[in-house]
Amino acid sequence: MPVISITTDFGEKDGFVGTMKGVIGKICPEAQIADITHEVPPQDILTGAIALWRAAPFFPPGSVHIAVVDPGVGTLRRPMAAQLGQQYVVGPDNGLFTPLIMDAERAGQTVHCVQLDNPEYWLPAVSRTFHGRDIFAPVGAYLACGVPLETLGTRFDDPVRLVLPQAERNAQGWRAHISVIDVFGNLTTDLPGAALEGRRDVTIQLCGRQVEGIVDSYGHRQAGELVALVDSEGFLEVAVVNGSAAKLLGAKLGEVVEVIFGDDEADR
Amino acid sequence: MPVISITTDFGEKDGFVGTMKGVIGKICPEAQIADITHEVPPQDILTGAIALWRAAPFFPPGSVHIAVVDPGVGTLRRPMAAQLGQQYVVGPDNGLFTPLIMDAERAGQTVHCVQLDNPEYWLPAVSRTFHGRDIFAPVGAYLACGVPLETLGTRFDDPVRLVLPQAERNAQGWRAHISVIDVFGNLTTDLPGAALEGRRDVTIQLCGRQVEGIVDSYGHRQAGELVALVDSEGFLEVAVVNGSAAKLLGAKLGEVVEVIFGDDEADR
Amino acid sequence: MPVISITTDFGEKDGFVGTMKGVIGKICPEAQIADITHEVPPQDILTGAIALWRAAPFFPPGSVHIAVVDPGVGTLRRPMAAQLGQQYVVGPDNGLFTPLIMDAERAGQTVHCVQLDNPEYWLPAVSRTFHGRDIFAPVGAYLACGVPLETLGTRFDDPVRLVLPQAERNAQGWRAHISVIDVFGNLTTDLPGAALEGRRDVTIQLCGRQVEGIVDSYGHRQAGELVALVDSEGFLEVAVVNGSAAKLLGAKLGEVVEVIFGDDEADR
Repeated sequence: MPVISITTDFGEKDGFVGTMKGVIGKICPEAQIADITHEVPPQDILTGAIALWRAAPFFPPGSVHIAVVDPGVGTLRRPMAAQLGQQYVVGPDNGLFTPLIMDAERAGQTVHCVQLDNPEYWLPAVSRTFHGRDIFAPVGAYLACGVPLETLGTRFDDPVRLVLPQAERNAQGWRAHISVIDVFGNLTTDLPGAALEGRRDVTIQLCGRQVEGIVDSYGHRQAGELVALVDSEGFLEVAVVNGSAAKLLGAKLGEVVEVIFGDDEADR
Repeated sequence: MPVISITTDFGEKDGFVGTMKGVIGKICPEAQIADITHEVPPQDILTGAIALWRAAPFFPPGSVHIAVVDPGVGTLRRPMAAQLGQQYVVGPDNGLFTPLIMDAERAGQTVHCVQLDNPEYWLPAVSRTFHGRDIFAPVGAYLACGVPLETLGTRFDDPVRLVLPQAERNAQGWRAHISVIDVFGNLTTDLPGAALEGRRDVTIQLCGRQVEGIVDSYGHRQAGELVALVDSEGFLEVAVVNGSAAKLLGAKLGEVVEVIFGDDEADR
Repeated sequence: MPVISITTDFGEKDGFVGTMKGVIGKICPEAQIADITHEVPPQDILTGAIALWRAAPFFPPGSVHIAVVDPGVGTLRRPMAAQLGQQYVVGPDNGLFTPLIMDAERAGQTVHCVQLDNPEYWLPAVSRTFHGRDIFAPVGAYLACGVPLETLGTRFDDPVRLVLPQAERNAQGWRAHISVIDVFGNLTTDLPGAALEGRRDVTIQLCGRQVEGIVDSYGHRQAGELVALVDSEGFLEVAVVNGSAAKLLGAKLGEVVEVIFGDDEADR
């Protein structure tokens, strides 16, 4: 039973995603469908890319990830599908898949991109504004049911790449950024926890506040306390125990997080 | 594998829809279940009817659409199921299925309505306030698993019909109405794009603002610009590129949209 | 086809639940997955416990209910699974399953609790902050696919028990509490409808307002009217017909609801 995931900025209220599931059910009724999120802020490709990138590695080989955050729908932007390692992605070629492509490249895995230009695998009538329904859902369903990637379109090698925020090493430690604000108000950064390895004397500055040291998990401090820890994907996170760091700090996506190593260790 | 869709005003927070899925899983575990929306405004039958009507045609033959927006639950309003062409609907007889029934009638397809009065296909105990769980979910599951429509109840021919807003032709062009405001703030109207066919010199007036001409898709204009286009279901839509027309215009469901043909073309 | 339900406070926006579904799809691809709710208020174990308890009885025998409202994640709180009657639960041992355990005990059904201490059935790498993904999703998937409960960990008999609010009999009638405020703004209490049985002359006081008598369903009174009825789970509920009692009364979870029997009947 193949698994198809769907990630969009379509929200839950209008039935757009349900319609895509109807299309999938027609073509590949045995597919299991898992929603990743449909609450990507409208047209926010980076947030969609990060949400998909965090979830996809936990899906089985053969999974097909349909992602639609698509401000360029109906223009010349390419519709695409790709094999990345043992999984597939389908959506607009606008950078949504950049983090997954980079991970596959780093791991030396297959990266095959195809421009979806074979209308045999689309709905018969294609609208100008809802390619999620008319192109990406049917193509994803055909992929999940075994149609080979190459028959869906023409190979290409230059997918659009997002510039991803990246933590930078500096004299004091690292300059990181808030990359995800989750439903709990936890603030994930782009600094891999590995960059802190072995360090004890760490100060974190963000939004005019300061956090000392790294804890193991939320429950190790009192409710309401501001803490830093390594999150479930392995990145530095700032949180309020049983509360919202986002609210407490008024934090926004992209804001700088300074990670300052103690004197003893800065030059290690 | 049969597909069951669910459309309600139950929201996502209370577990009402999950409970319905438990009931379905007991009766027809092989059914695939697709949520259309559970964010229909409370008791808003027209919005629920339109959401279901936009999604249903994309589902496979044999699909069963359970829809529950049911202010009359526990009173004399009939619970119903119907075959409409090759699909089925299940829910209260209050107009929720009017657009689908009208489409089936126009297309000369089967329209068989049945009043659900055979309690063999309900849960053993039926509450007064949650027929979605106690009647509609089990009936939908039995239908999906092959129980014939006629065994579920008694045939009737006069389902309640909603009065649907409809665009009207006038001397200048058309008087249309906002029929859907989607998550992006796009404003769909009840004017079929076909009514504009071939016309170039079109002015659209709504909420004290004016839009000139029709574009192909959002991406053909600058972000922030107010545009008119034909939407993915084939109706006239007013949108703000990468923004919200609903917010910009303070638009509300049902408001009038005047479509004015240019002088040269008004009498064509 | 086994059914797995998921109940969390993870919201819909971050992809946490989708990630859990990817994990399940890897281990037990034939499972049907039903979301109960992901909008439990953050860390609100009682609300999560009540949502799961209201939905679970409607699921088929063999169902596995994964529930994650887990303020103690990463600390010493035990991860647990249990067989309760013919169903299974998986999640943190913090009281989330108290109402289901109490119902199974009352019904004389199997109650077998197991501390999840066999890492063979977890993901290879376990984070400190996302046991929903790393422990509970894989354990639930293995259970659904037939791994026996005992192989997942070590038996224990003292699961953490929540103190549940409970209506109390008094001289006038009952002192009940608001236990659920649903999406419609209906106020469910902890008073079983059976406690009212046969009584007609009942006055209900809450939030400085008074309701006389019990109606059968919403549709029996005019829109806007404040009414009391027995809800779909069999508990006393206060509602506004086609409106929100929560808004009208400014009601909050846990508030007292006095149920006063009339003079004639108080001593029956």
